[in-house]
Order: sequence, then C-alpha cells, then structure tokens
Amino acid sequence: MERLPKCEANYVPLTPLTFLRRASAVYANRTSIIYAGTRFTWRQTYDRCLRIASSLRSLNIFKNNVVSVLAPNTPAMYEMHFAVPMAGAVLNTINTRLDAKNIATILKHSEAKVFFVDYEYVPLARDALRLLMADLQTCAVAAELSMPLVIVIDDVDSPTGVRLGELEYEQLVQTGNPRFVPDEIEDEWDPIALNYTSGTTSAPKGVVYSHRGAYLSTLSLILGWEMGSEPVYLWSLPMFHCNGWTFTWGVAARGGTNVCIRNTTAHEMYNNIALHNVTHMCCAPIVFNILLQAKPQECRKISTPVQILTGGAPPPAALLEKMEALGFHVVHAYGLTEATGPALVCEWQAKWNSLPRQAQSKLKARQGVSVLTLEDVDVKDLKTMQSMPRDGETMGEIVLRGSGIMKGYFKDEIATSKAFHKGWFVTGDVGVIHPDGYLEIKDRSKDVIISGGENISSVELESVLYRHPCVLEAAVVAMPHPKWGESPCAFVTLQKDSSSTEADILAHCRKNLAGFMMPKKVKIMNQLPKTGTGKIQKFELRELAKSFVVTDQPTKKSGHVKREQPGGRYRDQPHEQILAMSRL
Amino acid sequence: MERLPKCEANYVPLTPLTFLRRASAVYANRTSIIYAGTRFTWRQTYDRCLRIASSLRSLNIFKNNVVSVLAPNTPAMYEMHFAVPMAGAVLNTINTRLDAKNIATILKHSEAKVFFVDYEYVPLARDALRLLMADLQTCAVAAELSMPLVIVIDDVDSPTGVRLGELEYEQLVQTGNPRFVPDEIEDEWDPIALNYTSGTTSAPKGVVYSHRGAYLSTLSLILGWEMGSEPVYLWSLPMFHCNGWTFTWGVAARGGTNVCIRNTTAHEMYNNIALHNVTHMCCAPIVFNILLQAKPQECRKISTPVQILTGGAPPPAALLEKMEALGFHVVHAYGLTEATGPALVCEWQAKWNSLPRQAQSKLKARQGVSVLTLEDVDVKDLKTMQSMPRDGETMGEIVLRGSGIMKGYFKDEIATSKAFHKGWFVTGDVGVIHPDGYLEIKDRSKDVIISGGENISSVELESVLYRHPCVLEAAVVAMPHPKWGESPCAFVTLQKDSSSTEADILAHCRKNLAGFMMPKKVKIMNQLPKTGTGKIQKFELRELAKSFVVTDQPTKKSGHVKREQPGGRYRDQPHEQILAMSRL
Repeated sequence: MERLPKCEANYVPLTPLTFLRRASAVYANRTSIIYAGTRFTWRQTYDRCLRIASSLRSLNIFKNNVVSVLAPNTPAMYEMHFAVPMAGAVLNTINTRLDAKNIATILKHSEAKVFFVDYEYVPLARDALRLLMADLQTCAVAAELSMPLVIVIDDVDSPTGVRLGELEYEQLVQTGNPRFVPDEIEDEWDPIALNYTSGTTSAPKGVVYSHRGAYLSTLSLILGWEMGSEPVYLWSLPMFHCNGWTFTWGVAARGGTNVCIRNTTAHEMYNNIALHNVTHMCCAPIVFNILLQAKPQECRKISTPVQILTGGAPPPAALLEKMEALGFHVVHAYGLTEATGPALVCEWQAKWNSLPRQAQSKLKARQGVSVLTLEDVDVKDLKTMQSMPRDGETMGEIVLRGSGIMKGYFKDEIATSKAFHKGWFVTGDVGVIHPDGYLEIKDRSKDVIISGGENISSVELESVLYRHPCVLEAAVVAMPHPKWGESPCAFVTLQKDSSSTEADILAHCRKNLAGFMMPKKVKIMNQLPKTGTGKIQKFELRELAKSFVVTDQPTKKSGHVKREQPGGRYRDQPHEQILAMSRL
Repeated sequence: MERLPKCEANYVPLTPLTFLRRASAVYANRTSIIYAGTRFTWRQTYDRCLRIASSLRSLNIFKNNVVSVLAPNTPAMYEMHFAVPMAGAVLNTINTRLDAKNIATILKHSEAKVFFVDYEYVPLARDALRLLMADLQTCAVAAELSMPLVIVIDDVDSPTGVRLGELEYEQLVQTGNPRFVPDEIEDEWDPIALNYTSGTTSAPKGVVYSHRGAYLSTLSLILGWEMGSEPVYLWSLPMFHCNGWTFTWGVAARGGTNVCIRNTTAHEMYNNIALHNVTHMCCAPIVFNILLQAKPQECRKISTPVQILTGGAPPPAALLEKMEALGFHVVHAYGLTEATGPALVCEWQAKWNSLPRQAQSKLKARQGVSVLTLEDVDVKDLKTMQSMPRDGETMGEIVLRGSGIMKGYFKDEIATSKAFHKGWFVTGDVGVIHPDGYLEIKDRSKDVIISGGENISSVELESVLYRHPCVLEAAVVAMPHPKWGESPCAFVTLQKDSSSTEADILAHCRKNLAGFMMPKKVKIMNQLPKTGTGKIQKFELRELAKSFVVTDQPTKKSGHVKREQPGGRYRDQPHEQILAMSRL
C-alpha cells in the first residue's frame, strides 16, 4: 500500500481558489455579483480576478507578499479574495471602523506591499499613511520596511477629488491579462489570508489562515448552515470579518449570487432582499436591531424566508422571536477569528419544532455543535486537561482542534504558543456542554465576575436585562467591591422614547435574579463603547465601573479575591442556582 | 509566514473516522441504524465499533493489514466501515455476487488477514476458501501467504448449521473494549479501503482509497446531493460498491439514520420507505425496474418525496418520468470505483423547473458537473492533451483530477501508471461538455462502434431502443461487418407479456435513426449477461454478435477499420447529425 505515491491526478492541494475556477466552468453564465446597477457572471468574475492577479504580478507581487485592503462590501473587495491569492499573495482585509493609528499599525506589522483603498476611505487611509510614514522615518527597524503601493478603488458613484496614489482598481482590471495562469498552490499549508483580531482586550494580533484551513472551513459552513445550491447571499456581514465567515469563498463554491451593499442600513438591506430574493445573510445580533427598528418606509415585505446565520453574541430570545415573525430564520453560530469564523453551529433538530416558541429560542441561543471539519470541541479544566461532565452545568474552558484553526499569529511566537495548549486551541471562553452534546457559552473567561467566591456569568445577567421591554443593549462587568471582591455592574441603553429609570431596571433584576447576582449598580448610557467590529468593549466599562461608589457597608475583612488566570477549574455548586459558578 | 508550523491543534489528518466520533458526541441518542427489529443510537454504534476494533487488535490486526468482508447491507457491514480503520486496518468489502473463484482471487491478491462472512454467504465463502487453500498449496509465491482468519456474522434470523470458522461477530463485540483508544491516523494519505473493480473487461483491480480521499469525497457527495441533516437513508445500494458511494461515512457525518436491508426486493424497499419515512437512497437505474414492476401488494404509498441518487448508467427518460410520478426525485451522478464513487453530479438548476417534462428528463440524463472536491474534469484528446470545445458535440476522453481519486491499484504498478496520464486520471469513457458546463457521456471508449469511418455511440442507440414501449433493457455492441468494418448489433430484453418481434424493434429504429446508425441485427434475449454489480457485460455480447450473419452485400475493399487505443481524437462532423463522431 505504501508503494502508491501521490501524483498530480490524485493529490491536489486544497484551496478555495478551486471554487472560483469551478464556478467559472460550471456556473459560467449565472450571476455572481449584483451591486446596485452592476452585474457580473461567474465567468466574468473569474476573468476579472485573473486580470487583477496578473496586474499584481506586474507590480512585483509574489508569494507570501501581503496585500492590504480597506473597503466596504463592494465587488472589488469580493474579487480580491480570489485575485490576491491567485497572485500567490496573502490577503489582509482591514476593519474599516478602525482609526488611522490602528490601520497604520496593521500596515506596518503586516509589511503590506500593496494597499487597496476604497474611495470612501481615502481620508482615513491618508491619515494612516502619514502616521506610517512618520513611524518608518523614526523607527530603526524600519530600514527594511517601505511604504505600500496605494491603489484606489473607485466606484460608479465615486465623488471626484478624493484620489490617493497613482493607480486605480479598474485600470488594473483593464490592463490585466485574462489568460494569466496562476501559480499552482505548492502546499495547502501556505498562507492565504491575514486577519487582525479586533483587540477587545489586547493589541491586535495577525491571524494567519492556510489554504487548507480556509477550504475546509468553507465546506463546513456550507454544510453546517445547509446552504443549498444557487443561494442569493446578502453581504450584511463585513467581508473583513474573517473573510465574511468564509462565505466570500462559499458563495462561489455553491454557484450563488453575491448581493453587495456599501452600507448596512435598514433601507439597503430590505430593498436588496426584496429586489433580488435574498435567501441567505450573516450578521451580528446587533443588525437585528437595525432591521427591527426600521421606519415603515424603509421596510419591504419578505416574501420567502431569509436564512440568517448570526454570531458574535448569543441572540436574545426576545429579538429572535421578533425576527422570526418578520420572516427571518435565524441560526446561531459561535466562532473566533482564530477558528476561521464559526466553529460551532446550533444545528436545528426536527423534534424541536414541536416545542413552545420560548423553549425554541432558548435552544437556539446555545452555540451548538462542532462544524464537520472541526476535529473536536471540548470544555476542559486547563490545568488537568480533564473534560468536564456533559451535564449542562459544569463550566470549563472551551477548547478546539481541527484543520480550520489558524496557523498562528504572524510574527508573534509567544502569543501563538500561548494559544495552543497541549494539542488544543484555547478560546478564552468558558462554557458548558449539555447532555445532548450542544455547547453553551457562559462567558469570556475574563468577563466572569467573582463575587464572594461565587462566579457569576455576565452573559446570564445580560440575558435577564434583555428581557426588560425597554432595554436595547446590555453589558455587565465586574466592579470592585470592598466586601465581595467584585460585584456586577450593569450598563444598558434603552429603546427609543423609553422613559425607564435605573430604579426600574434594578426592580426588574430583583424580580428575576438571586440576591448574590444582583447588580450593585445599573447605569443607563446613551451608547456603549464598541470595537470596530461592533463588539462591546467591556474593558472600558470596567474602567468606568471603578468610579462608582458602592453602597454596601464595607467590612474589615474584605480584600480582593485574586482573579485566576485561565486554567482555573469551574464547577457547578448544586446548592445555588445554575447561574452560579464556583472556581475552585 | 513560514515560521508557523503545524501542530496537533491546527493540523488534524482528514479521516471519515471523525464523523463517527463526532456523531457519537453530538447526535448521541439519535437512531444510527434500523435493521428489522434492531435499532442502535450513534453512541451505541460508536461503542460497538470501538469494541470490534479492539477485538481486531487482539487478533493481531495492525496498520495496513487487510480485513475482507462478504456481507449484505447489515449493521455489521456498516460498523466495519469504521471499526476496521479504527484498528488501523484496510477494509476490503467483496461483491457478494461474485463466484467462489473470483472471491478466492481477491482474498489471495489482497492478502486478507481476516475474512468476515455473513451467514448467508457461508457456502459461497467455503467454496472460495477451498479454492484459496488449494491455490496456496500449489503456488510457489504463496509461501509467505496464509489463510485468513474466518469470522462468521450471524443474524437475528440466522438459520443454524451454517457455521464456518471458530469466531462469531457478536462475540467480538461482546468481548471488545469500549474504551479502546484507536491509534491516531498518522498520515491522511494512509489507506482506508481496498475495493476491487467489477472487471467488466479485464481482471479485477484493487483500488486503494486514502483517508483523505474518502473524507473529501464524502463531504462532496453530501454537498453535491444537498443531503440535509437527519437524513433517513435506505441501503438499497450495496455497501460493497465503492463503500456505498461514501454514504457509509456520509450518513454518520450528517447524523442520519441508516435503514439496513438484506435484500433489495420491491417489498423490502417500499415497506422500509413507508415505515421509517426514508428521505434518501442510492441505486443503479436497474432498481427503478424493481420498484416500477412491483406487484400491487408489494407497494406502499410514498407520502414524502424520496431523493434518489442514481448512477452506473444514464437513466432512460421514460423510467425517470415514471419514477417521479411515484414520488421519487431522481438525481443523476457519474463515477467510477477509482473516483471513490460519484465524481460528477447532475446538479439541478432552478430555471429548468419550468421546462417540459421531457426536456427535464433529457437534462437529468446528463452526467453533470464535478463535485466540489474534484479539482477538475475535462474532455480531452489524450494524444495532445488539448481540451475539446465545450459545444456539446465534440467528443473526447473524460479525464479527472482531484483528491478524491484513488491512490492507485494495489500491487499493480503498470495499471496504475496507465491510469494516470500527464497529471490526469483517464476514465476510459468518452463524452462531450455542453456550453453550460455540464458533461454528457457518449460511451465507454471501447464500446464506440466504428462503422465506415463514422463513430457511433452505443449509448445513443440504446436510448432510442429504450424509447420503444416494449423494451425493458437494451445493449448495443459492435459486430464485424465485411463492408463497414463494424456495424451496430442490438440486444434487448422485453417487458413482461410483451409480444414485440425483432422486426418491430428494427422498424422502430428505422423511424428514429439515420441510416448509417441502423443496427444490422436486433436480438431479443431472455436476459442480458451482467457483472456482479449488475452492469451489462458487453464483451460477452460482442462474442455473441460475431456469430450473426451480416446480410449486407460484401464488397472487395472492405477490411477492418483499425480500432485505436484510447488517445484517439474525436471531432464532430458537422455534415452528419450530432450522433456521429469521427476519429481522426
């Protein structure tokens, strides 16, 4: 059996580039992209990508060079997911919500050779490039670094006078060679993309994906979401977010149609859903609010169900129910940049259809089961690497392994070796596994509130807050407390025209929470601090919480409970309700 | 980027064994197998497989040892698809329709260490083992070979007195260790299965699959067929046929239910479909006849549509329409043992739904587009390796490449190197690619009839014959002809109680065929010679055809047209109808 070596016919490196070449061959005349009045077929998209790849090669872009992009969900942004790796290069899509300083940091760290900028972000990019220039001039290590070549992406509706750099994207398409033959992928372990984490708590890290990982994750998500052939996919999720949770590549694999939009306003989303019979879209639960709070004139009736894959935060049951009523069918997923997007999907089971709606929402809010190409997911005690019992109660650190997990962090060996622990990738989230095998996240391990020796899940408290009819958003963090070490402190924003007071919210909590879990403070905010990807920045809220006066009577023997590093062991305390957790 | 090495957390060898471990974790209490009154859950199936694997290890089975199985579609047969590779061994499922001599040949060639035999096949196995014993005693090379250890698989309804060997399958389950830890797959290129070709034209060859190839093909077929979660899969296709076209592994991947049946009688199929709400089944078109010709008391009404994946021969339009009327929704696929089963699936396009039924049947009879993990399929001139134009007319040799293609033929370097030609796997079939990218097979390259310099596709002629209402089966082969070199000769079997004569059939042909394509002879048969997998053996018919007298007047300048080896070039002759082909 050993005498049968690999050959070109039976061992082909796995790469998402296959999906585009195949789409061009077998779905040639199907619509690949719709963007306002512009339409392309899969043959045209393939042709345009080959041209861009050949132009990049003419610009001396070669294997492993980084090409950065700052753009919304336009056709150019989509095309670069294929064109850049076709040139052998590594795609680095930059979060458009970052500030100039962060963007400069990413351009420097990634050593980007080319920087594509959508016309809308030219002012932001200009600031970032100025900062980068200044940095390179003063920085000793920068001797080897040079400024990236800047290419502007114009648009049909591009205003004039915002040019930056000498080259324009469509020029590269026009002058490119559609008969360009991309280099064969030599090794499926070669890098395809570099995505910087949002840096909720630490400096952004550059997550590197391999062709193999991207390919397998793409297949898993099509399977996990049961996306059939010919989907019409609305780009409500930024493509810069884990390469659109792999659906940049996945829509090509399925021969679907990409409906690109520049802004995720209610009007743009409803309008495109109705116009093009959108079947699928991804978004964070925060987008549910945009859709639900649309003015009547922004809405359009949804004639056939739209499948939504959501993640980033568990969708509150109340929101889920409202979305379903509108014609959206929500599936919940869980993932991280490091796992190439969603690694678990809450696969729906037919028998759940007969349950009451509220019970369904509760099941749907769980993070679910591993996608097929994830070899394993577990909830473990990181010290002993023992698996926690699958009882839905005993908490542990969520760990993953599989070929969809990142190669590692670019130029950061320490962070890489920390992330991989005894054969597993450590997510930094804590959760439980239910007896039916479905995982539920309880919290980020660093967001657990340790109060008087009890561990309190901030997520659990937030879900109670969300049940208050006036609450729009909620975030609970630890606040120092002289007696209990830490106490929960809640921050909320309210629905429009709501007149609820902090006392009202506290009363709601008292009705629904055990005493030890009660927030010691509720603060109504106009808005919550968020990262570029729309995640609430709890570390800022923690800083804010420190300034609040605690009204509990201090005792002498107080003292902080020392916060353990991940690796601590979570165990359910049966004498308390299941929301409580004890770290031993 | 190169400094990010693989580790256990982010590089896991691809293997279908993952699917069972995952099913046991996330679909633990779902029904995995139904077999008459017996039911297992996925947790139980995993447990039983671990026990069998540990028992095989106790029997000194180690990496790369071959374990042969002669069994119908029972739970044991299913379990061995996981248990055997869990022990590191290679599964060799033997076609139960072979004779003792062929089975002995396979046992010898594969060097099987263990031979599992279902009680029903004990007499056949006994004959095979006797032949093997005699062969090993006389054969010089056999000094190193030994007889396999025989294990009988009993059944709940097993008659007594047919024991063979000392061990019984359930004993191995009972005495096995459910806490057995299978060896990690070291390399995804390691072999998982050994399947012997049916040998329509040559000696059976041992096709070796890798874990990687089996894994990727499984994913592709779930995707290509759009098999959703929780399928109820009826085992109408033998598992010994390319490991059930990968659905042995695929049903586990989808957390579905395997409905095992011992015999594919109309009664067993209809009964199980109705009892268990079967959603999916695979079969050759020949099974359509069994279903369509069932007696009224054998039939059960089909309440929800049953998805059928069919292959092995293009389904005649008439049969397709009758099947659809009964509630079966047929998808057509094309593959070979060497491609791990189906490599192309005729993906249905929504816009075709509005076409007349006959046009739909014609589209459905095409072989379709490559499954996702097939890197490429093409129709080429093997001499120049030029691609044929995608015009639906110009014929060429069908070639494939991708990670789902076999590792090669076991102990047959010559056949292996012949099969792989300039980076492609050569199928031995000739076909065309239509402008929409869909492939259509025209013939096996050796079945093309070369008459007076024109190439005639036997498949095209057969499709005309199938349109005659009395024809049940049809096969056309080349018959020597003094003037034209070769002429078509047709063999048919008739529907029950049909009174059609050969002259009737000829008259039907005259109405529907160009003169040069007319069969010079039609022969009505009681049955057609078939291989163990139910394929018509054309080489036997060719022998028979030689005995027929040709009535055309011979001319002096006749002489055979030399039949070229695959590698010849097919080109459409526009002056003839599209059925004609010219080899240049």
